[in-house]
Amino acid sequence: MSHPSYLLGVDLGGTNIVVGAMPTDGSAMYAVRTEPTRADEGADAVTARIVRMVEETIAETIAERGITRADFAGVGIGAPGPLDRDTGVVLITPNLGWTNYPLRDRVSDALGLPAALDNDANCATLGEWWIGAARGTRHAIGLTIGTGIGGGLILDGALYHGASGIAGELGHTSIDANGRRCKCGNYGCLEAYASGPAIAVRAREALEGGETSLLPSMVDGDLERITAQTVYDASEHGDAVARGVVRDTAQFLGTGIANLLNIFNPEVVVIAGGVTQAGDALFEPLRAEVRRRAFRPAVNVCRIVPGTLPGTAGVAGAIATFTAQQQASTRA
Amino acid sequence: MSHPSYLLGVDLGGTNIVVGAMPTDGSAMYAVRTEPTRADEGADAVTARIVRMVEETIAETIAERGITRADFAGVGIGAPGPLDRDTGVVLITPNLGWTNYPLRDRVSDALGLPAALDNDANCATLGEWWIGAARGTRHAIGLTIGTGIGGGLILDGALYHGASGIAGELGHTSIDANGRRCKCGNYGCLEAYASGPAIAVRAREALEGGETSLLPSMVDGDLERITAQTVYDASEHGDAVARGVVRDTAQFLGTGIANLLNIFNPEVVVIAGGVTQAGDALFEPLRAEVRRRAFRPAVNVCRIVPGTLPGTAGVAGAIATFTAQQQASTRA
Repeated sequence: MSHPSYLLGVDLGGTNIVVGAMPTDGSAMYAVRTEPTRADEGADAVTARIVRMVEETIAETIAERGITRADFAGVGIGAPGPLDRDTGVVLITPNLGWTNYPLRDRVSDALGLPAALDNDANCATLGEWWIGAARGTRHAIGLTIGTGIGGGLILDGALYHGASGIAGELGHTSIDANGRRCKCGNYGCLEAYASGPAIAVRAREALEGGETSLLPSMVDGDLERITAQTVYDASEHGDAVARGVVRDTAQFLGTGIANLLNIFNPEVVVIAGGVTQAGDALFEPLRAEVRRRAFRPAVNVCRIVPGTLPGTAGVAGAIATFTAQQQASTRA
Repeated sequence: MSHPSYLLGVDLGGTNIVVGAMPTDGSAMYAVRTEPTRADEGADAVTARIVRMVEETIAETIAERGITRADFAGVGIGAPGPLDRDTGVVLITPNLGWTNYPLRDRVSDALGLPAALDNDANCATLGEWWIGAARGTRHAIGLTIGTGIGGGLILDGALYHGASGIAGELGHTSIDANGRRCKCGNYGCLEAYASGPAIAVRAREALEGGETSLLPSMVDGDLERITAQTVYDASEHGDAVARGVVRDTAQFLGTGIANLLNIFNPEVVVIAGGVTQAGDALFEPLRAEVRRRAFRPAVNVCRIVPGTLPGTAGVAGAIATFTAQQQASTRA
């Protein structure tokens, strides 16, 4: 019998569950499927859905690749934190309403496969590092910008977790000590300015000045319906208010990323999530802001780029975290 | 012949050169001597002074411990960065006016001993981690607050240097995107608020309000002579203006350190340098500010404490960096 050479990845997000299969060498991803996360159905139902999706991915990969179930070595799971990697327990998920849920073992038992669990932002960063935009580096920072801003740290060639597993909360670093209140309780957090909802809030505020803009007509006059996506679309069409909001987003992110360059001196900062749809309108002023603020030797060695695995970085990273945790337990 | 079991440490600072000897197990420090750094005498003269001080430390340790010169295995040197650890070259020192100076090899050749070079703030952090306030931890952050604010990162049990060796510039992280201009070119850097000179500037600004204060009389009315030390002394005597300045310092540092807790989730943050003389008047509001801002799981596992090796952390850390670099080159 050949050594099992396929792994399964699960990316459990606040919006979607994504599942896929990969050979252990990361050369391809098979049988990817996505379903909306239904927070209201509870932890057990979400777990059952994950298990069914994984079974479907297994069946499809077997059919497509001419392999057997024995070729699957395990499952990696990325989930919203904070969580305990050692015990595989999700401690709290504000968006899903779970508390102390043993997600890893539930999935593992149902599938009859070993499993590993890590934070979703860590997985996204690990995925981009394994086979995406940060491939081949030893020092990489990941920022995932969506409903919130998550972060992941690849330091000296490995994911960094800190003393109790919660390192990398890069969205909750203050760039204005007396700035906007963040949901976390702090003031001036990057997330309070540059997350999707924060971008929408700033667009609404900008419209209060009464400037002419495409934005109101794009939401039939209901400004509450403006999202970050609306802002990117309007910016694309040359709307001045939307462009201003994107430019400000670039400055806020540039300030935070300049801090990360001076702290970590990384080779690459990978930005993932919806905000990357703003494209060069975001990345060009963002890079300029970082150049203005960070130390030149740090700027000179660091690329700031969008992720190259939109939608699947988390699945790839969940698979990579399974491999990493298995290697760590073999060494221990 | 027994294995050489003593090491020498050199801490080259902007103000003082400190030299000492230690057994490799870190159990004690011998023959410590301090001389003022004379920036105007140039790199070769400073090197000659360092070499003479090391020779004196060797002679004194030999006499005191009944050992021989063959018992000394090498020299660790901490110097202001940026520098190239691999080649042992100090690239630029704004305070000393050196450029591309091969300090490590000059010292090594003159003494006939192998040498290693690292950044002074890294050495101070490493010293506190080896035998000081951060001993026994795997994740420790050091902040050295003096003329500037330097930082050092112990991550997963080793000093972290980043892609090109300049990681840990914690003084140059902005806590106010539109705040005070920093000498580095950025705005709102921690150093622009909480370094010694920045504390003195804020005290002078506070006096412009016309409040009654001991401070003017302490400097014979010449406000330019106010230093951070004057502020700590006045605060100690209950002066309201000075206390306000110390409290503000605590809030600025607390904001920056809360960011570090959310980023690194460390077990300890060690603060070294003159600012620690402000004692509980600084540390109590600083810890309160961190509790207000950082994630509770990060706060719960992290001590924020003054260094326990004032004056000699850099020497101990220089010795520890020699050992670490020697081990790394043995492995390579």
